Parts: sequence; C-alpha cells; structure tokens
Amino acid sequence: MAKSELRRDLITKRWVAIATERSKRPSDFGVSKKVQGDCVFCPGHEDKTPPEILVYRKEGTLSWKVRVVPNLYGAFDIDVELEKEKNGVLRKMNARGAHEVIISTDNHTKSIYAFSVEEMNDLLWACKDRMRDLAKAVNGNNEPKIDYIIIFGNQGESAGASKEHAHWQLVGLPVVPIAVWNEIESGREYWAKEDECVFCKLTGQERESQIRIVSQNEGFLSLCQYAGRFPFETWVLPQNHRPLFEDGSPKIIFSLAEILVDTIKRMGKILKNPDFNLHFHSAPVHDRQHDRYFHFHVEILPRLTKEAGFEYGTGFYINPTSPEEAAKCLREAEL
Amino acid sequence: MAKSELRRDLITKRWVAIATERSKRPSDFGVSKKVQGDCVFCPGHEDKTPPEILVYRKEGTLSWKVRVVPNLYGAFDIDVELEKEKNGVLRKMNARGAHEVIISTDNHTKSIYAFSVEEMNDLLWACKDRMRDLAKAVNGNNEPKIDYIIIFGNQGESAGASKEHAHWQLVGLPVVPIAVWNEIESGREYWAKEDECVFCKLTGQERESQIRIVSQNEGFLSLCQYAGRFPFETWVLPQNHRPLFEDGSPKIIFSLAEILVDTIKRMGKILKNPDFNLHFHSAPVHDRQHDRYFHFHVEILPRLTKEAGFEYGTGFYINPTSPEEAAKCLREAEL
Repeated sequence: MAKSELRRDLITKRWVAIATERSKRPSDFGVSKKVQGDCVFCPGHEDKTPPEILVYRKEGTLSWKVRVVPNLYGAFDIDVELEKEKNGVLRKMNARGAHEVIISTDNHTKSIYAFSVEEMNDLLWACKDRMRDLAKAVNGNNEPKIDYIIIFGNQGESAGASKEHAHWQLVGLPVVPIAVWNEIESGREYWAKEDECVFCKLTGQERESQIRIVSQNEGFLSLCQYAGRFPFETWVLPQNHRPLFEDGSPKIIFSLAEILVDTIKRMGKILKNPDFNLHFHSAPVHDRQHDRYFHFHVEILPRLTKEAGFEYGTGFYINPTSPEEAAKCLREAEL
Repeated sequence: MAKSELRRDLITKRWVAIATERSKRPSDFGVSKKVQGDCVFCPGHEDKTPPEILVYRKEGTLSWKVRVVPNLYGAFDIDVELEKEKNGVLRKMNARGAHEVIISTDNHTKSIYAFSVEEMNDLLWACKDRMRDLAKAVNGNNEPKIDYIIIFGNQGESAGASKEHAHWQLVGLPVVPIAVWNEIESGREYWAKEDECVFCKLTGQERESQIRIVSQNEGFLSLCQYAGRFPFETWVLPQNHRPLFEDGSPKIIFSLAEILVDTIKRMGKILKNPDFNLHFHSAPVHDRQHDRYFHFHVEILPRLTKEAGFEYGTGFYINPTSPEEAAKCLREAEL
C-alpha cells in the first residue's frame, strides 16, 4: 500500500504528496525527531537501515565507500499500481515512486566540503547507477513506473538535513514535476523561435562575458545565475548540449565530480561552509522528445537568506548580492 | 535612482530584484541586523522611520492605531522611469514600485493572535487605502506605474519577520508576478472549457462536502487546501465571485476581518501560536480582462516544516498532515 497519496492543485497545478499513514498531528510539530546516540548511517549499524539497494566496497575489503538504502520515512512506493481518482474538480492518485538515501561516505564527520574528486565521483556513479536501474521499472503492461528522477542534497540543519552524516537523496516520481516542466516549456518556446537550445545559447553568452563564471573545465562550467533567487546561487552546466546526467560517460562524470568539488570548496571558503540545497535537473526519464532543448544542470542554493511572505506570495525573489560580485568572490577564492 | 534592478530569468521566467546599492558581501551574512534597544515601530519613535504615508488616529487623540511608512530597506522606488535593457538573451529593468510597512498596532507586545475584529478591520482598511492610492500613480504619459500589489505578513522569526512589533507589508510591482499569473492562466483555461470560474466551482464543492472547511461567515469561508503544500495551510476565499480585495465594501472588509481573526485564533489555539506567512492574491491592479475567472483569496502558510532540496528541485511538496485532519482540528478548536 502506498504511504501517501498524490494530489494536484487545480489552480496552481502543483503536485503534493499527502501523508495518509503516520499523518502528523498538531502535537507532533516542534518535537525533534533526532535519534540520540549512534548514527544509523555509520559502519557497524547497517542493520538499522532497510536492506541496501547498492553498495560500492573499498577494493579488496568488506568495508564500503557508498551505500544506497530506501528512505525509512519515504513518501513513495515502487510496488503500488497507479490508480487515479476524480471527485468533482479534485484529482488524486497513489504515490508510486521511489525514495532512496545515498550515504556518500562511511566517515561520519566528513562533510561535503572535504570531499575529494574521487569521493564525489563515487557518489555521482551511485546516482547514475540508481537512476538507470529505476528507469527499467515497468508495470504488468510493460509501462514505465517512473517518469522523473530528482537527485538532491541538503547540507546542514537550516537546509533541512535531518542527519549530520553526509548523504544525498533520490526521489522517483510518476509525473514530471512543475519546476522541470517549466524549464522544458521555456526550452521549447525558445527552440520554436530561434531553432537553438536556450541553455546552450545562455552558456555560450556567459562563457564569452566571463563575469558570472566561477569555474570551468573541459566538460562543465559553473556560474552565478544572472537572475539568481538567492545570494551566491550557482549553477553547473555542461559545456556542450547534454539533456541527461545519467547517460554521461566515465569522462563526463569525472569532469562533473571535479567541478562540483571545486565549486563547493570555493563556496565553503568564501561563505564559511554555509548550509545549502543542491539538486540535479536531468531530462525526463523516458520522454525523449524534449532532448533538443533541455539541458542537464545542477543548481546549488546557499541558505543565507530566508524566504518569506513576499517570495511565497509572488514567486518573485529579492537577492541582496549581485551575481557578478558573488562570482568574482568565488572565482578569486584561494583554495 | 532605483535601489535595485529587476532581472528576468530566461529559463524559469522568475523575476528577481538584484540589490545594486548596499549589495551584501560574503561577510554580511549571518550577522543579525536586529537593532538592540527601542523598537522603531513604537509610539514616541515616529522620527526613526521615514515620514508616514498614512495614519489612522484614535478618535479625539493624537495617538495612532495604524501607521504606514516606506520600508527603509525597500528594493523598489516609485519615482524611477521604467527603463528596459537587453544584453543578448539577458533582460533587465529598473525596480519601479513601492515597498511599505503597515504597522498594525501601537502596542509592541500585541501579537496578531490577540487582534480584535476591529483591529483587524483597521489593518485591512489601511491595506485597501494604500492599494487604491498606489493604483493612481502614473508616469508622464499617464501610464500606470504599478501593475500588481501584494500584501503580506510574516509572523515570527522563522517566517522571516525581522521585527517583533506586529506589522504587514505591501509591495507594488511593475509586473504581474508569476505566482499570480499561473493562477490567472488556470482560471482562463478552466473558463475556456467550462464557462465558469474555477475558484467559484472549487469553493462550491468544498462548501458542499464541508470536510476541509475551517470557518464560514456571510462573506467568506476558510478551508484547508485540498492539495496544501504545508501542514495546516489554510485559504480564505469569498463566498461569491470577487476578483479584487481593494474594491470591497465596508461590509465585505469587516466580514474578512472577522474570518481572519477567527481562523488565526484557531491556528494559534491548535498549533500554539505558530510562525506563519500570509499573503493576499487580489487581481492585477489595472488589467480587468481576467476578472471573470480570477478570485481574490488569502493564503495562510504555517511554518511547521522546512522546504529543502526536494521542494526546490521539483516544486512538488510533501505534506505530512492531511488537510481533512487539519481542518477537523481547526474547526473543533475551543476559542
């Protein structure tokens, strides 16, 4: 049985997963769920998580480098049949999908700011392997079970991390979420007018002007977004057109690992290891018709400011640091 | 000169105001801006805010009930000429608009949870008066300076309130923001198919089923949104079709004051005066073509959970409390 149901808001078109099991009652809020004592992500406590889905071991040993387990509190379930229900103007379906935790080091105290390129490369390979595996999931009619997979990481308590031990998460969804859909729509519109990928166009212009570039290598560049919502908001984009993360070659994955480690270290240096959220936007898992105008990228959002009524009410942001100044600081950081 | 510039993101279509004056440098984050000592919103300190724009005095006295002043750190300026600039695919314009603070009581320790209907009514009248006044602002060519006005309130520090003294804010914008535009688009689509306002349809269905209704009076109802993003997310909607807040009759404004006070008190009782954000969605100031399918409403968003990588990456929310259970708790609160 699904642990929650998915509802679509008629007016905003947002999807929401509503917990139906273990629904939180008013008295549950404000109570910290933090487990005292030993960390369940640490070696020796493997029996305290659900059985692992994937593990990379250190060569010639039984100890591990990366471990992927189902999220114990996950809202999605791969085994449910998708049932859609209408009630007047209201729509819902059950929460088919996947919610996994990618434990990216066996070292409890190693923060992402201290990751080596090799460690980041292992983490990215675990993401890639899980995405490719989930893409194969089909129902009895051979229809794919998952339409979109999002990889995300929450660094620090103010960014919503409930555990200190470094980890990212993966959620597989039965729909393409609105944030990705909006980007696809913009890409489609620009292609219709200009016969060109809007991400490639933008990347080219940024590469030429250089003023918002943070870092570059053969495969990728990182830049402070021209209209970034948050101070020091940084995007990582492939140098060449690439809709999917998960079909990247070993060379491309390593190149992404390099630029992520470099960019995150610069942020750590300049902003004193700030809390941040990070997510991947790869193209939809199966729907290949948008590949010409959708371009894989990673968004890194430092949590230096608070969203409040203005942002919620308008979707309009006030960013107190100009992206040009932010990029200059990050570019000039001494690593 | 404008205090910031407005940039539009090519890919997400989000607008962002980028501070150009007083840009925050890396070392400015994490430093609390809280002024120690006396509150500048308190009586006797009127000289510490910019000169007031509007004041309601207590009958027969010089002391005030409500006071509206420009936001000292506001990002928008009514006096600039709107200049648009293109640079390749990048777009910007200067930040014409208004940013005002509505100080809603002279009593420093009175929280919104303790407001009487009369006090809320005064606050709503101040919002209405300011909206109607700003709507009249035109440039040299007699073109309106402001296309959209948002009213919002941040209650409590975790909701982004920088001052304890009760206040709401108003921002006038030279564009209709994307959050409102998306609602207009949904209204338009539904009207095209069904020849009916989607908000009226939804309100009618909710009134019939009752399970998500929190409170009702002659003019308004409050309900927990079917696909609410946040636990106990509550919307206040007019019983009858009404695109604008600011053309409400004295009777309608009083009716809204009643239901807001009632709903906020229920929330305070059940959730122990939680921090929350609140905003109004009224129709665009001048563009009247959407009035048939846009319906004024107030959204109240308690801050009981944290948005993190999943929400930022997808625009998809996980709500751990079912709206039906939330509504039942609020409905049954003993006031």
